[in-house]
Formats: sequence, structure tokens, C-alpha cells
Amino acid sequence: MDNNLVTKYVYTFSKENEPAIKVDKGEVVTLETLDCFSNQIQSVGDELSSLDFSKVNPATGPVYINGAEPGDLLVVDILDVQVADQGVGVNGPGMGPLQDKVGNDVKLLQVKDGKVTFKDMEFPVNTMIGVIGVAPKEGDIPCGMPGDHGGNLDNKLITTGARLYFPVHVEGALFQCGDLHAAMGDGEISGAGLEIPGTVKVKLDVIKGAAGERPVLETEDKWYTIATSDDFTKAMNLVTSDMQKLITKAYGWSDTEAGIYMSLQGDAEICQACVPSELDLVLRFGVPKRADKPLIKKN
Amino acid sequence: MDNNLVTKYVYTFSKENEPAIKVDKGEVVTLETLDCFSNQIQSVGDELSSLDFSKVNPATGPVYINGAEPGDLLVVDILDVQVADQGVGVNGPGMGPLQDKVGNDVKLLQVKDGKVTFKDMEFPVNTMIGVIGVAPKEGDIPCGMPGDHGGNLDNKLITTGARLYFPVHVEGALFQCGDLHAAMGDGEISGAGLEIPGTVKVKLDVIKGAAGERPVLETEDKWYTIATSDDFTKAMNLVTSDMQKLITKAYGWSDTEAGIYMSLQGDAEICQACVPSELDLVLRFGVPKRADKPLIKKN
Repeated sequence: MDNNLVTKYVYTFSKENEPAIKVDKGEVVTLETLDCFSNQIQSVGDELSSLDFSKVNPATGPVYINGAEPGDLLVVDILDVQVADQGVGVNGPGMGPLQDKVGNDVKLLQVKDGKVTFKDMEFPVNTMIGVIGVAPKEGDIPCGMPGDHGGNLDNKLITTGARLYFPVHVEGALFQCGDLHAAMGDGEISGAGLEIPGTVKVKLDVIKGAAGERPVLETEDKWYTIATSDDFTKAMNLVTSDMQKLITKAYGWSDTEAGIYMSLQGDAEICQACVPSELDLVLRFGVPKRADKPLIKKN
Repeated sequence: MDNNLVTKYVYTFSKENEPAIKVDKGEVVTLETLDCFSNQIQSVGDELSSLDFSKVNPATGPVYINGAEPGDLLVVDILDVQVADQGVGVNGPGMGPLQDKVGNDVKLLQVKDGKVTFKDMEFPVNTMIGVIGVAPKEGDIPCGMPGDHGGNLDNKLITTGARLYFPVHVEGALFQCGDLHAAMGDGEISGAGLEIPGTVKVKLDVIKGAAGERPVLETEDKWYTIATSDDFTKAMNLVTSDMQKLITKAYGWSDTEAGIYMSLQGDAEICQACVPSELDLVLRFGVPKRADKPLIKKN
């Protein structure tokens, strides 16, 4: 299976991106990823101001899945995520609620035995994928931006063992991912996780004709809708109405019953909120899984 | 200790509220609480539209703590929260992102053996306190509103075992709480949890001269700042800058280092977000506890 190794990088999600590889449904693909700075920061002297920003937020791919067509749902099983032994921690310039209360600094942080060393303390890694998704119907969307196609979702639950569902907009879906973090908190409030290169192993499958409007995430115990907007209330509207639709369909409940249930058992959570900044807010809304009634049936 | 039983209800947080009881620092108090409708809904025929809304969101108290003075920090250890065996689930009229996509319905839900029955499923209770806080410096704040004094924080982590810290604004602090939920998700997106009467047992203590600006929550493994605003970005600014101040002081780090650390290890989370509505948004920001360096030293 490791013949399916992808090492080509792109900076946008676009139907114009030439496929790095073509695979059949059900195949496993391994993607080598650069960090969000295209590995440009290698020592403490490397300042953010000297970066080539055209090389920020690369994704690896795209992967063309044979038979995936617009209207289908791409199923991405994240089988494994591995990261390097050193990452970069920074406060992104012009990003996040603390932007006027922090200076520019670059921390090179060591990752060893599942722990990150930060000053006088250690904390456990929480490896995750920042950028992941498929080509949009039209246009080139920079990999640093989140949207209905996926992209820079910065959702810390997107890691080994998770399953993602993306609506397919173009022939072959054109899946790509990158921007790994060895650590990141919900909100990524200063605009950066522990930015680090690594490898991602995914299994790619397709459910015919089952596309929704936005990405859905399935973890071991929960289902999550994911939505983005520059406005908090709009993002809440999207993420909750997407979940309401899934619940009423799968459980056979009324809209009203779904609303009551979601207030009791649903969690509105923040993926990315480095506001104010150019980046849209990313929210997720999660409900517990029921073994007998999956919100999305995988064939 | 159960001599300190409080059964007096109020509908505002105010220095004008007559103390229900006066206790010394370190004493335990038990407060009997009504549900958020003052127990007005007892059967399925009781419609929301017939409620006396002047009796919505009662709190029990206030408790006057001898020796608590403006500038002190009130420490509230939540020793126990017990709820009745029936609660009310509704979609609050004019509340939350789904308000145009749900109808009026009242569900009377049974709570038994730690489980809530909802239609064809059961889920575990997550008992919590919706309204909790102290009198503000000036004015009468309805118990349904959240603010720097506490109030309707609707933070599901405020439950048995949690410790809260409130800045004291008036002599005696005037602590009060109510609005228990047998279940609620983060966001309380339809404006209601599983609304239920019950009892709360708290231990009240005072740290002299240690008041911050807003409530702080300590759980078994994390510290959380809590802030409210009608604007998401403003609430994020408050909740993250409060945490930045606590970390730089307790850990001896720079503002910049705290910012990087908070992006890696801090979680921005939603307590209450029934937007759009009259209710301000309530956010919390949490970081892991360090055994050697508490963010607030309890004497």
C-alpha cells in the first residue's frame, strides 16, 4: 500500500491542481507534509518577517479518487498521523485576541516520547491535521483559508482514528491535506499550533450521491458538523441547522424535538477563533453517537 | 451544618437584596433551588406562553459571608448538587440559532438512576448550576443575565467538585445560585437545559484583597477564565487576556510566551451561545493545571 506515497505540494484547493496520484476507492494513501511555513523556520534566528509568505500553508496532494463525482460524499479514514521531533511555536502577526498584547518570538519546541517541552514544563502531544479537504466547485482557495470544502479547519479532533466526510464538487474529488500540529488548543487563539512536518496515512472511499453541504466529522463517540463564517452567529446557524437536518433524518424526529435534544446533548465548540484576523471562524457542533442510528450510513 | 438551609428566592443580583442568612468564612450552606420557571410547568398542558415571566430564573439566597469586603475574592466550593426526578425541556422562544426552525413544545423528562429518558433513547445526566454569582457593585441585574458578577453563566463545568472564584463587590459578597440543569450541552443552543429543581451544597470562603475582574473556575484538571459579551470577539478578548494575566503572574513568563503557550494548550470554549437573543454570549478559556503553580493561591 505504501506505493501510494504522495510528496507533491500545493498552496490552493482548486480543480485546476494536477493530481499527484490517482487511486481507486478503498485505497490507502500516505502523504508527506511540510509544516505551515514550508519548513522555512529551522533555527531561532529565522524571523517570521523574513518568510516567503507565498509558501505558507502547503497541502500535500491532490489525490484523485477514481469514480468520485460531484454529488458524492468522500469518506476519509485517518489511519495514522506521525510528526517530526521539532516544531515551531509563534504568535501569528495580526492574528487573534491577544495580538496587541504579545511580541514576535519564535520557539523551536522539541517533541519526544509523546511530550512537548515548553520552558520549565512538559505537556502531552495532541497531534492533529490543520488543513484537509477537497477541491471546491469553482476558484482557487488558498490552503490557509477554511470553508465548505474543508481547508484550514484547524479542528483538533481531526487526528488518528477520526473519519471525515466531504461533499465532492469535482471529478476525482481532489483530496489534499497538510499543516500538521503536534499540539493545538481549541481556538488556536494566537493563530499557530505547534507547526511541524510529518506524514498522514488515510483510506479514501466514496458514498455515491450522498453529498451534504459541508464537512462532517465522526469520532469514536460523537458526530460533528463543521461550519465556517466571518460571523459567529452565522457559523452557529450553519453548524446547528446542519446537525438538525442529520438528526431529523436519521432519528425520525421533528425539527422541534431535534432542537430540544440538541440544547440538552449537543456541544457547540470552537475549532479556530484567531479573531480578529483574515481567517474565518470555524465551529463544530457535536452529539453523542448511537450505535443503532448513524447520522451518515457508510454504505 | 445543615442548619444553614436557605429557601428564599430572588430574581436579581443586587446589593439591595436582604440576606437570607449570614455565615462565617468556611461554613457550608445548603440552598434549595426552584427550576428556571419557578416550577410553574408541571404538566404537558402548561404552555410557555402562559408563564408569569416575572418569576423566571429565580436564584436562592443571598448568603452574606461575614468579613467579605469589596476587593476580596469569594471562593465557592461546590460540594454537592442534587436534582429532582422530573425536568422540563423546551426551545426558548426567540432564543438560539434554530429559533426559526423549531416550534413550541414542552417535554417533561424523567430523571432516574443517573439517566434522562428522551423519546426512544436514554442519556446520562450532567447535573450543573446555571445561575451563580455575587451582587454587583451597583444596580439590579436580573438572574437570567450573565456578567462579570456571575449570574446566568450556564457553564456545564459548574457542578459537584468545581471551585469558583468571584470578585467581591459589596459587604458580605451576597452569594446566590439557582437554575439547575440535569442536562445541558455547551452553548445551550435552544436557550434551555433540562430545567429542574434541586439542592446545592457549597462551602464559602474568602481570600482577602485578591479580587480579579471576572469569575474564575477551577476543576479537577483545569483552570478557566469566564467572560461575557454581546460580541464574540470582545468575549474572546476578555477571556484570553484574563488568562494571560493569570499565567504571566503565576508562571513568571512574558506576555509573548503566555500567548504562544495558550495557543498550544489553551481551549476556547462556549458556555452559552443562544444567539441571537437578549442573552450575552458566555465563553470560557481553559488551561491544564500544574500541581506546583496554581493560578490562584487559596491561602
